[in-house]
Amino acid sequence: MKAGIFYKPHDVRVEEVPDPKIEKPTDAIVKITYTCICGSDLWWYRGISERKPGGQIGHEFMGEVIKVGKDVKNVNVGDLAVGPFFWCDGKCPQCKKGMSSACLNGGSWGTKGTTGCQAEQLRVPYADANLFTIPKGTDEKLMPSLLALSDVMGTGHHAAVSAGVTKGSVVAVVGDGAVGLCAVLASKRLGAKKIILMSRHEDRQKIGKQFGATDIIADRGQEGIEKVKELTETIGADCVLECVGGKEARDMAIGMVRSGGRIGCVGVPHDVSDIPAGDIFWKNITIGGGIAPTASYTPELLADVLSGKLDPSPVFNLTLPLSELSKGYEAMDKRKSTKVLIKP
Amino acid sequence: MKAGIFYKPHDVRVEEVPDPKIEKPTDAIVKITYTCICGSDLWWYRGISERKPGGQIGHEFMGEVIKVGKDVKNVNVGDLAVGPFFWCDGKCPQCKKGMSSACLNGGSWGTKGTTGCQAEQLRVPYADANLFTIPKGTDEKLMPSLLALSDVMGTGHHAAVSAGVTKGSVVAVVGDGAVGLCAVLASKRLGAKKIILMSRHEDRQKIGKQFGATDIIADRGQEGIEKVKELTETIGADCVLECVGGKEARDMAIGMVRSGGRIGCVGVPHDVSDIPAGDIFWKNITIGGGIAPTASYTPELLADVLSGKLDPSPVFNLTLPLSELSKGYEAMDKRKSTKVLIKP
Repeated sequence: MKAGIFYKPHDVRVEEVPDPKIEKPTDAIVKITYTCICGSDLWWYRGISERKPGGQIGHEFMGEVIKVGKDVKNVNVGDLAVGPFFWCDGKCPQCKKGMSSACLNGGSWGTKGTTGCQAEQLRVPYADANLFTIPKGTDEKLMPSLLALSDVMGTGHHAAVSAGVTKGSVVAVVGDGAVGLCAVLASKRLGAKKIILMSRHEDRQKIGKQFGATDIIADRGQEGIEKVKELTETIGADCVLECVGGKEARDMAIGMVRSGGRIGCVGVPHDVSDIPAGDIFWKNITIGGGIAPTASYTPELLADVLSGKLDPSPVFNLTLPLSELSKGYEAMDKRKSTKVLIKP
Repeated sequence: MKAGIFYKPHDVRVEEVPDPKIEKPTDAIVKITYTCICGSDLWWYRGISERKPGGQIGHEFMGEVIKVGKDVKNVNVGDLAVGPFFWCDGKCPQCKKGMSSACLNGGSWGTKGTTGCQAEQLRVPYADANLFTIPKGTDEKLMPSLLALSDVMGTGHHAAVSAGVTKGSVVAVVGDGAVGLCAVLASKRLGAKKIILMSRHEDRQKIGKQFGATDIIADRGQEGIEKVKELTETIGADCVLECVGGKEARDMAIGMVRSGGRIGCVGVPHDVSDIPAGDIFWKNITIGGGIAPTASYTPELLADVLSGKLDPSPVFNLTLPLSELSKGYEAMDKRKSTKVLIKP
């Protein structure tokens, strides 16, 4: 089969690799119908974080089940299913708590004998816990939204959950990438009454408004913080969703959250200095978040996509075949695309 | 009137000062019936934090209203009432959010023209927002529990709320002082199913058990963390209540909370290094807490004290007259008492 391989920063290639095989009776093999490129892939693509050359890349997927191990119970050959970016066993104490991304026996794609999924096929361990089936006959138009549950929509939802967004919340979202936009959508879904999106890109502002942003602020730093305060009775937002992952973004979040408010961070913290303990204590700020447990969230979000209540698909604004994977990375690296859909 | 005055570390005295007067039409004057000494008072008593000499001390009180300004509506002369350790206006945007300890016009006792309340009388600003009346004829035995709402019980409750304690939570409490013990009681009240108290003092362990602790761990540091994991399916507690306020206590809290769990900090952070952003992100830990909004919490907790559901009074194990205030500080400094009740 064909699969995306990392060579070195700014160099990914699609090459022939052996087809995956069932290795354990709880495995399934999926023929990928859609995968995509994540903003977090840019960290190693740009050489900011290290990655060993030679491995298969990609961590978001949906596809058709083409083989199942003998102990797989909930998934059958022929099923269409979406999977999480962090696989889990579905039964450890952490999974039972709804924190599949901390599964005691799970991992990210490419670790513990698994591979990346920007490829034609994928071996999925613990298939019963990681493949969420989609009813036969589901409209093809819904596929990008369903794929988004693998990571980007679930991660936006995790930002909102970690920041305690609930009915009536006043929310600010830092970051207008695909995750930030999904965080707007998740906040709207959870009942936020005001959603302020920090964005200086007109195309993203437009999607943000479509997703439920009530206000857009283009200023950054202290100016941005002051603008948020103007919109929030001078005190700041109840909930700030930090969807970038850097010191600047976190400082903005701390500055624009009200005393007693909560910050949900889902941007991977590269080059982030430590959190100022005194500042957050004296302001009574709660700060949380991390790697989203999308396997735990998928059932709930999947139902809303199928019923038409939830549509994150506008975050994808470029579709390419697998053979043009490297063009997809280039488009995201150069900010020509918010998020690239790949159709093997 | 008589009032406690700070001279220098290890030197507090009770002296004659002028009686307080109504200064604003929203003020009330309270004749203190009970006050007490807080663990946080020990920071300046021991000279660890700086305090300007000469001012009145104390921040927890209840008493009889003896004068009211002309704009006071909800409180009458003759009422018995309890007040919060951080006064507020009750109507600013932060107060409306339930975060009275971040009131835009409030402060701690001793700031903005107010005085400490280890004294015979106290001027209370914004009396309608800071005096919670107690029904006439309430049993004298309930008074220590009602006084506890001023700070210690509300602060324990804030630790539990900040850590997200709810029905079925697995909780660990770091700190067996009066606040830690009240955090146990608050967790029990909020429905925690398992409450692990870190304590090496037999007398405090006893109160902890009486308050609802299901397990006691005397070990500290890594040994303590391992013991908590043994009791929590190896993953750690859902909620850790950090009621000490130092790096050692916070590191323990981070070590014993499960991935996806929450830490509520209410110990004032002296000499605390910053929070390791990467550690909490990769473990999906949420960390929050701060100065408890006891004015916001009092109505709810007061109802439970009056109905007999909530009894934090065992945290007081020494009662002294105001004239012996310095003995009270000494007893707490030398750990001869968990919390000292003062009866002017």
